[in-house]
Amino acid sequence: MEATQPVQRIFALMLALALLIIPSLAQTETPKKDAPPVPPPPPRLNAETYRDEAARIIGAALTDDTAYRRLAYLSDHIGNRLSGSTQLEEAIKWVVSEMKRDRLDNVRAERVLVPHWVRGEESVELLEPVSRKLTMLGLGNSVGTPPGGITAEAVVVRDFDELDALGEKARGKIVVFNAPFTTYGQTVQYRGLGPSRAARYGAVAALVRSVGPVSLQTPHTGALRYSEDQPKIPAAALTIEGAETLRRMQERGERIRIRLRMDAKFLPDAESANVVAELKGREKPEEVIVIGGHIDSWDVGTGSTDDGGGCLVSWEVVRLLKKLNLRPRRTIRVVLFTNEENGVRGGNGYADAHKAELANHVLAIESDSGVFRPSGFGLSEDASPQSRSDVREIARLLAGIKADRIDPDGEGTDIAPMMKEGVTGMSLNVDGTHYFDIHHTQADTMDKIDPHELALCVATMALMAYVVADMPARLGR
Amino acid sequence: MEATQPVQRIFALMLALALLIIPSLAQTETPKKDAPPVPPPPPRLNAETYRDEAARIIGAALTDDTAYRRLAYLSDHIGNRLSGSTQLEEAIKWVVSEMKRDRLDNVRAERVLVPHWVRGEESVELLEPVSRKLTMLGLGNSVGTPPGGITAEAVVVRDFDELDALGEKARGKIVVFNAPFTTYGQTVQYRGLGPSRAARYGAVAALVRSVGPVSLQTPHTGALRYSEDQPKIPAAALTIEGAETLRRMQERGERIRIRLRMDAKFLPDAESANVVAELKGREKPEEVIVIGGHIDSWDVGTGSTDDGGGCLVSWEVVRLLKKLNLRPRRTIRVVLFTNEENGVRGGNGYADAHKAELANHVLAIESDSGVFRPSGFGLSEDASPQSRSDVREIARLLAGIKADRIDPDGEGTDIAPMMKEGVTGMSLNVDGTHYFDIHHTQADTMDKIDPHELALCVATMALMAYVVADMPARLGR
Repeated sequence: MEATQPVQRIFALMLALALLIIPSLAQTETPKKDAPPVPPPPPRLNAETYRDEAARIIGAALTDDTAYRRLAYLSDHIGNRLSGSTQLEEAIKWVVSEMKRDRLDNVRAERVLVPHWVRGEESVELLEPVSRKLTMLGLGNSVGTPPGGITAEAVVVRDFDELDALGEKARGKIVVFNAPFTTYGQTVQYRGLGPSRAARYGAVAALVRSVGPVSLQTPHTGALRYSEDQPKIPAAALTIEGAETLRRMQERGERIRIRLRMDAKFLPDAESANVVAELKGREKPEEVIVIGGHIDSWDVGTGSTDDGGGCLVSWEVVRLLKKLNLRPRRTIRVVLFTNEENGVRGGNGYADAHKAELANHVLAIESDSGVFRPSGFGLSEDASPQSRSDVREIARLLAGIKADRIDPDGEGTDIAPMMKEGVTGMSLNVDGTHYFDIHHTQADTMDKIDPHELALCVATMALMAYVVADMPARLGR
Repeated sequence: MEATQPVQRIFALMLALALLIIPSLAQTETPKKDAPPVPPPPPRLNAETYRDEAARIIGAALTDDTAYRRLAYLSDHIGNRLSGSTQLEEAIKWVVSEMKRDRLDNVRAERVLVPHWVRGEESVELLEPVSRKLTMLGLGNSVGTPPGGITAEAVVVRDFDELDALGEKARGKIVVFNAPFTTYGQTVQYRGLGPSRAARYGAVAALVRSVGPVSLQTPHTGALRYSEDQPKIPAAALTIEGAETLRRMQERGERIRIRLRMDAKFLPDAESANVVAELKGREKPEEVIVIGGHIDSWDVGTGSTDDGGGCLVSWEVVRLLKKLNLRPRRTIRVVLFTNEENGVRGGNGYADAHKAELANHVLAIESDSGVFRPSGFGLSEDASPQSRSDVREIARLLAGIKADRIDPDGEGTDIAPMMKEGVTGMSLNVDGTHYFDIHHTQADTMDKIDPHELALCVATMALMAYVVADMPARLGR
């Protein structure tokens, strides 16, 4: 008996530990007690059968700098490409011509009318307590000021609660939203909705702290969205530096006066186009996998990351598969959407023009989060369990380049209109650490693109698109 | 015998290991065989006797935001302060008046004439292969261009070797130095010496990639140094983005043409001053510890880090010690030097005006590396072993705030003229990770200052200055 006592003690200890651990394990695995987990359906394919093609695709992508060189040309020679600009139309013509040189199938520009907003001259001058110019960028789609500008007292708020607390005291003033960056989704509200929220209380203009985590006097533009039921007041982004200066002045009890001048206005809608090209399917050409990005950009920097990179990745996927003689069962269609930034006319136009075809759209993948190191894909929340299972199986082929993560949600501004019609959507997901440092700024330029990371994006997108297009069963059905 | 065998084996193994390790240990400890290490002299004081004062100083610094608030005022209300500007003179007047309000001893402005360089209008336009404005900042002390600018073909080089290889092919061209940032010391050569090196081969202007590790279209200015034996050609900084664009164009074999316009010029020397104030010593007032930074800055941003922070730290040391009734044996003298950035007339002027006193200058500490988290001090390379031993002993009091490192070398542009006359020099050393992100840019602004880190700098500088000023024996003697 004595000799066995230590063993008994250890057993008792393990039992106690197990009792402590097991409930928490159970809690992790079944969060909802009333919804017992349904086992995921088995995938409709065995990824191993694509191991050879995977090696050829990844190898080719990582030894070819065509996409990088073309993105550099687009950035350096054409530059930024706001809807309505000659550069956007120059870019579209250049892509169509190059795609024809690549001998892609059915290369075409599908006409879309786009809004034509122009920035014009603009400035923010601090008049009191000291006289100083503040670095700024008008927000996209903003109305302009009268020619002499708007001169008013400014009041700084940190969030909508502070604005609401201010209420009628905002009347006649310029409201400065100084919301520190948390996530893009949370912080971009002040850019999108802030101007109309301020107008509700009678503000005459709005200034918004740039939506980004860091700043070297870096203003970020981007679209605002006016509410129909409020007067439209002009709005511009300040840098973090500028917004923080105003905050300190207000905290010291100083009266702040500002003059905002903006010539911004809309011209009549302009001609533009979605660029479309295909690798036509060998067995079921009517079934389509769309891959794409957007060819327009803001009117600052060169739009290399947002979204020149997404365009070049999608385009290169089709060029590379063609070069490798990998023609899948279904059609892979690259679409470079126009007007993502301030209207989504390209995405809506595509869904409208191809309405009859959408039931045959197997999948749509958008790359619009930069072309940094890819982690994998996001798959739309409402994708069928079978789709999720299939996509996870395909992603196994991407484990060797660490791009095999399938995130629970995926979206894209340009593919959203298709997704609303039932098309399964995916996003190419990448390391987002530095995306919002340069987003919608003068610093979105070619030097921020790493050729290796770009090539990894091509490999990742190409492999997913190819296997979904080629697998015997249709994805998710 | 048998029983002892394992022990013998272990012993043999240890002996073998020891034989392997000892020589390498010896190598680490005595790098020069012909210079046997001299044991450092024992310190001339026991830091423990200052433990109470250390607690009072650190406690006071970490609970007082006067320095932060004053730096914010200097930044927000006076702004940048280039030599010759009205803002510099406004800053000097404001400091003198506030120091008098602080009731510091012997507050005065010591007159110095400074160079008066003005930037004027300036631009860099890319004309070929595409037409585009490039973000730029003229280099300090540069000559201007003729009114219509200088238009020439550009050639991009990575370093001086590439320039030398180019030789006469640089004649008539604009030389673009595109040296990636390594360390400041290595990379700043191209800004300082590049223009004259290019002029030697007949270049008509020079453009220099900004000296910094990161960029959001951020140009960095700073002084160039013309060689007397070469023609003076105008020179400006490009952003990393701009310089890399030109490099890619050249690598694609494209002809690059640029127009540089700069109105830069020197006006007649202007009146300025070093600001001096003291905490007069209670026993040996003639023995002086100088602490300081420079009150001038470049004409961009607000000079909050370079070197508003260094000024406020030094000033606050004296204010805080006075407030704590800690009057040391010797005099602590704060000097806010003028014209560090483009002439060092303040540093030279001080050494000239106080020549007779310099033998009684016990120590000079400069804070001009930013006011980020302090790590301790650098002590001038030629400081006596006794000084080093004393300073290390004092630094023990800073271990609690992790600011107790004494680096082997210390310097400062403004104290260098004194050091040449034999005064021991020290630098306040801080975490330099982000210093060169903002150095000489629009982004050197108040938001880059962390109030806690600033307070730690005050504590660190105050403690070192106080103990050196108060210890019974003179430092290092």
